[in-house]
Amino acid sequence: MALNSNHILNGFLDRDISPLDRGFAYGDGVFRTMKIVNGLPLHWPQHYQKLVADCAVIGIVCPSAELLVDDIQHLFTPDETAVAKITITRGEGERGYAVPAVTMPTRLVSKSKYPQYNPSNFTNGVHLRVCQTILSAQPKLAGIKHLNRLENIMARMEWQNDSTFDGILLNANGDVIECTMSNIFARFGNKLITPNLAQCGVAGITRQQILSVASVFDLSAMADTIPLSKLLSADEIIICNSLYGAFQVTQITHDELKKSWQTQDLANIIRAQLKHD
Amino acid sequence: MALNSNHILNGFLDRDISPLDRGFAYGDGVFRTMKIVNGLPLHWPQHYQKLVADCAVIGIVCPSAELLVDDIQHLFTPDETAVAKITITRGEGERGYAVPAVTMPTRLVSKSKYPQYNPSNFTNGVHLRVCQTILSAQPKLAGIKHLNRLENIMARMEWQNDSTFDGILLNANGDVIECTMSNIFARFGNKLITPNLAQCGVAGITRQQILSVASVFDLSAMADTIPLSKLLSADEIIICNSLYGAFQVTQITHDELKKSWQTQDLANIIRAQLKHD
Repeated sequence: MALNSNHILNGFLDRDISPLDRGFAYGDGVFRTMKIVNGLPLHWPQHYQKLVADCAVIGIVCPSAELLVDDIQHLFTPDETAVAKITITRGEGERGYAVPAVTMPTRLVSKSKYPQYNPSNFTNGVHLRVCQTILSAQPKLAGIKHLNRLENIMARMEWQNDSTFDGILLNANGDVIECTMSNIFARFGNKLITPNLAQCGVAGITRQQILSVASVFDLSAMADTIPLSKLLSADEIIICNSLYGAFQVTQITHDELKKSWQTQDLANIIRAQLKHD
Repeated sequence: MALNSNHILNGFLDRDISPLDRGFAYGDGVFRTMKIVNGLPLHWPQHYQKLVADCAVIGIVCPSAELLVDDIQHLFTPDETAVAKITITRGEGERGYAVPAVTMPTRLVSKSKYPQYNPSNFTNGVHLRVCQTILSAQPKLAGIKHLNRLENIMARMEWQNDSTFDGILLNANGDVIECTMSNIFARFGNKLITPNLAQCGVAGITRQQILSVASVFDLSAMADTIPLSKLLSADEIIICNSLYGAFQVTQITHDELKKSWQTQDLANIIRAQLKHD
């Protein structure tokens, strides 16, 4: 445990990244962000499983869970609530896109403060806007949380006001995919729908957990195509990620239009169920 | 001038990258690769102009040419032929896609060996294959050489044999866009056409130079949509980048099909014109 360190690289506290790292050169890697509670990651088995799966999509062998847990235990105190970010890259390589014959993946675990969410997010929900930046379709990379995140950055640059919690990202057809840092669900009666991520978007673990636990709340949950107009006609909308769990969406602005929803219970119920409170 | 250094970061020889650098975290930056001849970059004005323009697209203020030339002079000997890679990122930032209110761009200049091209590339041309990986359409980022290069990597993973020099990348419509590390031109009679890069692809400076000098060789040059079938019916095909200048393409394989061309002169003429020999 290292009180003054904020990151550990390949097991070495505070070591910096080589300029030859393909994560820096090309975004050739994946990452995950998770809530640390009492010094340990909430929902670690799901996070690690997703990390391994995302690495596999781009042909990286993920370091062992033991190494990563060891890194986490070096970086966080046993009573700490914080955020851990794990980044796995293909490792160092000479210039050029060709993957070296032998690679040693880079593993970075970084610590940051747990965000101070506005208390009204929990009681009154959050406001979203619809971004102009569209997500491009790339079935080979869809669903994974890779390091090529310029689209999210361009979308996030579209607003500065603090009252917008996140931005909705559409694909080129105008279908809802996700938000810049969240997945999204729309409830119609007892049906809970989240966008199909076969072409773009990040399939987060909280999204997967909600799909799995929905039946506990007498909801049938599935992934499907959701045009923006359909989203705006939902009975209830929630967003989710691994840090805040789930929030209800009580307002969406799109160009000059504004649609509002009364506060409801689903986000609070899910947050409690997933132990995010 | 530092004989044993391979990179200079923000003016400091051999300094490594912070894990907080947004280039590493998100691919939030741009880069250029250039040939160093006698210690100086070939076509520096064009490279710097493109670097500034690419930075501007994603909202980064590019460091001055003076700083970068100074870095280059620290890294390369006055008689050296090599490769310089310049990477500019948005700089360090806390976790999250939102761009910090104040940022200090990171500038990295790296040195690597000039590639040893197969001598037959110059006399007999090169062979390409058509990649399965398609380029996604993202008009907000099209044309710029940003650090989100996973598509190029996935495409480059499609072959291991040394006889394939580069791979042709198509868009979702089946139109030719570029190669993984090259731009491409097709000649039909006295018309020279290169793909339109409004939706995807990197608009390299050699491509721009060829568009500009084509009239010297009595060719009319323009950017246009080029379906793969049209490319394969061209009289002559050349590819280009800032390191090798231009090579003729004498064979393209696509699935089980193979199309060949006799050797011609255009690539050699262009290479000489652009002082790449």
